[in-house]
Amino acid sequence: MSEYFDTLETRDPAAREATLMAALPRQVAHAQAASAALGELLAGVDARAVDSRAALARLPVTRKSDLLARQQASRAAGRDAFGGFAAIGYGAAMPRLYASPGPIYEPEGVARDYWRAARALYAAGFRAGDLAHNAFSYHMTPGAFIMESGARAIGCTVFPAGTGQTQQQLQAIAELRPRCYIGTPSFLRILLEKADESGADVSSLARGLVGGEAFPPSLRDWFAERGLAVYQSYATADVGLIAYETAAREGLVLDEHVIVEIVRPGTGNPVADGEVGEMVVTVLNPDYPLIRFGTGDMSAVLPGACPTGRTNTRIRGWLGRADQTAKIRGMFVHPAQVAEIVRQFPEITKARLVVSGQMANDRMKLLVESAAAAGLAQRVAETVRDVTKLRGDVEVLAPGSLPNDGKVIEDVRSYD
Amino acid sequence: MSEYFDTLETRDPAAREATLMAALPRQVAHAQAASAALGELLAGVDARAVDSRAALARLPVTRKSDLLARQQASRAAGRDAFGGFAAIGYGAAMPRLYASPGPIYEPEGVARDYWRAARALYAAGFRAGDLAHNAFSYHMTPGAFIMESGARAIGCTVFPAGTGQTQQQLQAIAELRPRCYIGTPSFLRILLEKADESGADVSSLARGLVGGEAFPPSLRDWFAERGLAVYQSYATADVGLIAYETAAREGLVLDEHVIVEIVRPGTGNPVADGEVGEMVVTVLNPDYPLIRFGTGDMSAVLPGACPTGRTNTRIRGWLGRADQTAKIRGMFVHPAQVAEIVRQFPEITKARLVVSGQMANDRMKLLVESAAAAGLAQRVAETVRDVTKLRGDVEVLAPGSLPNDGKVIEDVRSYD
Repeated sequence: MSEYFDTLETRDPAAREATLMAALPRQVAHAQAASAALGELLAGVDARAVDSRAALARLPVTRKSDLLARQQASRAAGRDAFGGFAAIGYGAAMPRLYASPGPIYEPEGVARDYWRAARALYAAGFRAGDLAHNAFSYHMTPGAFIMESGARAIGCTVFPAGTGQTQQQLQAIAELRPRCYIGTPSFLRILLEKADESGADVSSLARGLVGGEAFPPSLRDWFAERGLAVYQSYATADVGLIAYETAAREGLVLDEHVIVEIVRPGTGNPVADGEVGEMVVTVLNPDYPLIRFGTGDMSAVLPGACPTGRTNTRIRGWLGRADQTAKIRGMFVHPAQVAEIVRQFPEITKARLVVSGQMANDRMKLLVESAAAAGLAQRVAETVRDVTKLRGDVEVLAPGSLPNDGKVIEDVRSYD
Repeated sequence: MSEYFDTLETRDPAAREATLMAALPRQVAHAQAASAALGELLAGVDARAVDSRAALARLPVTRKSDLLARQQASRAAGRDAFGGFAAIGYGAAMPRLYASPGPIYEPEGVARDYWRAARALYAAGFRAGDLAHNAFSYHMTPGAFIMESGARAIGCTVFPAGTGQTQQQLQAIAELRPRCYIGTPSFLRILLEKADESGADVSSLARGLVGGEAFPPSLRDWFAERGLAVYQSYATADVGLIAYETAAREGLVLDEHVIVEIVRPGTGNPVADGEVGEMVVTVLNPDYPLIRFGTGDMSAVLPGACPTGRTNTRIRGWLGRADQTAKIRGMFVHPAQVAEIVRQFPEITKARLVVSGQMANDRMKLLVESAAAAGLAQRVAETVRDVTKLRGDVEVLAPGSLPNDGKVIEDVRSYD
């Protein structure tokens, strides 16, 4: 049995990039034609010319908040529930739809392994004939279905355990003897601890794929001590699988059917390789053709190749949320406003707004990296005032001084 | 659009019966070969000869308790979780498996509309392009999946609402505007009442298919007053759809792929048409080929044909549980024991054991219908003693005296 889910994983990286870039103009044209919202957002864009990452980077980013606002406006106008983003409607082409917090609604198409989770499960060691105990919720949100359809594509049997009912879940594990676990890492820990207490036999469990929350190495090692090799994946309800962990345990390898960019939070501008920023995903899904979808999650490219032989780009995993909006003296300040200030000064290479002090006594200081400092601070301060309607200090730093953590707004206020 | 799901529903009843009886020997042979448990239970049976209801009635009935016992024994012996009844094992042929109370485990195969629920949904007015709000639980038990796969076969979109989260469910109904509801009738009532309180717009709901509990006509009318035509169906986790309600609202019409017998509780003997008894189902499912499965539920054939033009046999719906085991003076008495007593007296046509008195002062009387009364009561009383190890009175009644309610043991003790 191969170590890889398919031969795409070990392609020459140049061949992969060529394939993705060749698919991009077709996907943009399809999105313009089949999705009313993307037709509007990408109006005037020549799809044929969007055949490179540079061209892609000039298209607008659609963030979760944009999706929510468009969905709400669409429903209020008596139109579809998906804000015009879906290329399919109620009926046979859409067997299910979901509600994620917001609520934001997501369609599911008929494609086998619609969210492409099989690749992540396979890398975690799931194989045909395995029984997988699926402890994600099947209600409203797609988490459980994302993993289930992937497991089915591999040839696994899935037990839809769902959430809660811990004692019944332990009985089912003891009696059905699943080799694989799917769910959150914290619930797996609860199951194993309760099994220790009650003596339930959970020894059949050998593999796990977890997601939905942070998965610290200490917990991974705790599972390993109990004979369970547990891997994480990164997927969202909107775009499906984005990246997955391999036996190498070095970051997460990107899925083969997404184009991932890492951008400065609040902007659509890709950061330099290795810098932390927001993950923006373009997915080659004809049913829900999101182009440059801002996940709101931060990560960074991890240099080098995966020791398992997979040749795709690796990312460092989840490094926090990109939505760094702060409320300062009663006013909201968004990362996009910091980007707007920076945009007006070509000599600034990077900036970070630091909010400090105590509630009702906030201080705001914009740290900017620039080689040319003469008079810059004062001019920037005026722009800060214009853009945010708030007074703030400005400090000019040498290029490379700011930490690489993706933070555009850093809130260090004391809330005691 | 046709009023019928397919042309099978309006077949000549003789053609249907011929088709089912022609399928029966093949199904028995398949069960003997592919299911270890049925191979054992039907050892020595010539499958080719099981080509009539009379021949079928000579095969053993497998009840829920038998299934549970065989599953437990199989697992204890390190064999499969299904007690040897399933013809499929973990892997691609079994995408999911479930746990019903017991727990009894049920496999799901890959067939489209595996449980055949589409017919019931179609009769309830579900059509391609509809959105269905599915408020059955997707966790552990198959209820939600039975209905979902049926809705998918029709061409509906399903929202997996699940149980609980009433406010979020109401918001989803207001925003997604489903035409159809699937779930328990009591939860639909809760949703509508909460909507009245909160003003949530649930006016899109027009059709419902309910199950899982009793559905009184008063509640059906209450839904109708709110513009909701709600129908019931009868399905189990083991055999799938058994019968479904139609617009005629006269009992439930049998599914096209089951052979239903109504037997005297505790026995495998079919009752006369119209008499209340336990529903025993033989299902033409190759993956889980249950032959003469005792559902434990009671019903009776309803004479006449469905006014909608469907030609299949109708049943009266759910008329209680067939498991009438009673504990009398510390001893369990089972319907099968009453059947054993009757078997020894060909002159008895029907019997009913009535348990009365108060706890610790129980009285047991066997009422028997017989035309030949001379000396019968005393002889029967001796057999009662032999079979039950309990002393009981016997009263001989004229044939036709006992009520038609399927009761073999009637417990009228006072528990005050």
